[in-house]
Amino acid sequence: MPQEPVSLATGQRSLADPAIAYPLRPPLTRGCPRTGTADLAYPVEVDYAYDRVPAGLFDQPAGPDLARWAPLLPPLPAPTLGEGGTPLLEACGVYVKDESRNPTWSHKDRLNRVAVSAALTEGAPGVVVASSGNHGASAAAYAARAGLRAIVLASAASPPAVQSFVRAYGADVFSVPVERRWPLMREIVDRLGYHPVSNQTVTHTGHPYGPEGYKTIAYEIFVQLGRPPAAVFAPTGYAELLYGVWKGFAELRRLGVAETAPRMFSCEPAAGGPHARAVASGAPAAIVDLGATDAYAIASPVGGHRGVRAVLDSGGGTVLVTDDELRAAQRDLGREGLWQELSGAAGLAGYRKLGAAFDGPVVCVGTSSGFKDLGVESPRTVEATTFDQVTANLSATPAAGRRG
Amino acid sequence: MPQEPVSLATGQRSLADPAIAYPLRPPLTRGCPRTGTADLAYPVEVDYAYDRVPAGLFDQPAGPDLARWAPLLPPLPAPTLGEGGTPLLEACGVYVKDESRNPTWSHKDRLNRVAVSAALTEGAPGVVVASSGNHGASAAAYAARAGLRAIVLASAASPPAVQSFVRAYGADVFSVPVERRWPLMREIVDRLGYHPVSNQTVTHTGHPYGPEGYKTIAYEIFVQLGRPPAAVFAPTGYAELLYGVWKGFAELRRLGVAETAPRMFSCEPAAGGPHARAVASGAPAAIVDLGATDAYAIASPVGGHRGVRAVLDSGGGTVLVTDDELRAAQRDLGREGLWQELSGAAGLAGYRKLGAAFDGPVVCVGTSSGFKDLGVESPRTVEATTFDQVTANLSATPAAGRRG
Repeated sequence: MPQEPVSLATGQRSLADPAIAYPLRPPLTRGCPRTGTADLAYPVEVDYAYDRVPAGLFDQPAGPDLARWAPLLPPLPAPTLGEGGTPLLEACGVYVKDESRNPTWSHKDRLNRVAVSAALTEGAPGVVVASSGNHGASAAAYAARAGLRAIVLASAASPPAVQSFVRAYGADVFSVPVERRWPLMREIVDRLGYHPVSNQTVTHTGHPYGPEGYKTIAYEIFVQLGRPPAAVFAPTGYAELLYGVWKGFAELRRLGVAETAPRMFSCEPAAGGPHARAVASGAPAAIVDLGATDAYAIASPVGGHRGVRAVLDSGGGTVLVTDDELRAAQRDLGREGLWQELSGAAGLAGYRKLGAAFDGPVVCVGTSSGFKDLGVESPRTVEATTFDQVTANLSATPAAGRRG
Repeated sequence: MPQEPVSLATGQRSLADPAIAYPLRPPLTRGCPRTGTADLAYPVEVDYAYDRVPAGLFDQPAGPDLARWAPLLPPLPAPTLGEGGTPLLEACGVYVKDESRNPTWSHKDRLNRVAVSAALTEGAPGVVVASSGNHGASAAAYAARAGLRAIVLASAASPPAVQSFVRAYGADVFSVPVERRWPLMREIVDRLGYHPVSNQTVTHTGHPYGPEGYKTIAYEIFVQLGRPPAAVFAPTGYAELLYGVWKGFAELRRLGVAETAPRMFSCEPAAGGPHARAVASGAPAAIVDLGATDAYAIASPVGGHRGVRAVLDSGGGTVLVTDDELRAAQRDLGREGLWQELSGAAGLAGYRKLGAAFDGPVVCVGTSSGFKDLGVESPRTVEATTFDQVTANLSATPAAGRRG
């Protein structure tokens, strides 16, 4: 194996005020301590010695294992599961970055390689995560791989399929009433010393290193397209993904590797939309009422400052999509051979909803596999024993398709 | 995009007798017509102009898109979904080739890129497949991508999750009694002109081009390890995978790229095991009674000659594994961060059951994601509202894990 390049991470910096800096350790998992209030928390980000980034870092192909981007990530002592290196496929008039191709079949693996590495660096006996979906399973997988324990605080409402998923990695899974999840997580952190890899603050801050893993999506898209896209549409819950991808492209521009950076669009369920609310009202972050939606992976009443920064700094925007719009996008991606979870189709749904033209390629991040929705939609299959029963029930519309 | 290299496929050759050769087209989807009998069918394989294989073909990294191996595959007019280029990860004392990282999250995508390409070459309006699982969904995805229709003849017993999966790609899905599946498929082939991408013969022959796609697993393992492994253990239903991987390694040896080839081990559910029976009895193929097993993806009473050839020609063997042994292997892989479907753990289960030592690396092919089993096992999650309820229910055993 080649020698792994060394992290150039130098410290943490407040997103509230770039003049406020902290050492790299310990990770500020409860946000920026100097600027937070009872109503609003600001995350921190990781800073690097950008002047020491090796030449040729972005010349390598977009294969798996985040360690290939080690200089621009925090230290990565947690072993890889082969995360990243996902394909970029044309479908429905855009490019889809197919994150269902990760080790636990979602983009969250990029975050958890980084966050579980932090747990190892800090000497924690395990990680704790409040999640009913992809994030919990991914954290459990990376913890298991690293020899750490994992506690997952789930809600009773999570699909049974996802509960099997989380338990497969040996995590201790608890079904916890929603109002008890954060207090319980704080107790587990304070009393058991477990490292928190999900949010603990009033508006979202999450793990300070987590979005650094998502930067690698930007690096890979740049390598795959040979240029930055004109716009990126991302399914948005807490906006860690949106911010991480934005930061990656901003770094490419800062390093002189790319001349431009894309406009970033948050795509949230219309049933909630804290980032759309914050941007519209000029607030640094917002909390909204959350209505009913099947897009459980991005359904959150709580937003954070990261998403607002990504939208504003990139000259992008916010889009709200209904479940019907999500289902149409999910269906159309399936007709071109890509089965995304309902939330994973939010990028395409948002692009269509916005209806804007862009001077260059548009990338929609497809976050996870359709298997994650199981129980949300039930199939109806025609029974047949004769040829006539088959031909009488063939669908009328031809496949969408694309010839190679 | 670089110019795609040209296929060097020259024709088809009978596995019953290498002196019996046929033109490359049409694909002999009902096996070798000269040697088949009422009780036994022999498949054909694809032959190539091996003396014209470009130097450096095996120097490229193992990224996605089978077209990188185009010289040693039949023509590939079907568009890619980014199949192949899957990670090889150490776990449980072996290397696991994680085929859950393919476009529809199983190894079948490699076969269907090739088989759906054949449907395009032959000018068929669609493909038809008898499958209740991964194969049907993969065929549907590649057909959709290529603008072809797909008919999937499923059994009522397939898990609901898998039915959603197949339908997501726009296939026409029919629930067909098992005794009607093959007659109905033959009618759809003969009367609608659909191209068959699953088996139509008394013992298994399947699509003649299909296993060519699996050869790429061997090419990738060779590139990833920097050498051929000593042994490969593969989950085995019809043994197309086992044979394809074997053929790939045999080609590497024939081309002088590698000096050795691995011993190949078929890992079948103990409830059936037609290949174990055929090898033990000296028959070219066998049909057995099939008992109950949860490993539905590799549960078949019908074997074929390909698997027998792979085992005998490689000096390998056959292993039968019980559902309990499969579950133990599945659980232990999960504890190192890899969640395979039950059938996908058959390679590791077979390696353990055999208990043999090998003079070199052992590779187990992990065929698909644990999501494919949904409905087979139901989770039980502890409810908690207090810290004491959490600590009283933490699991006793530490995570297995491996530090990076």
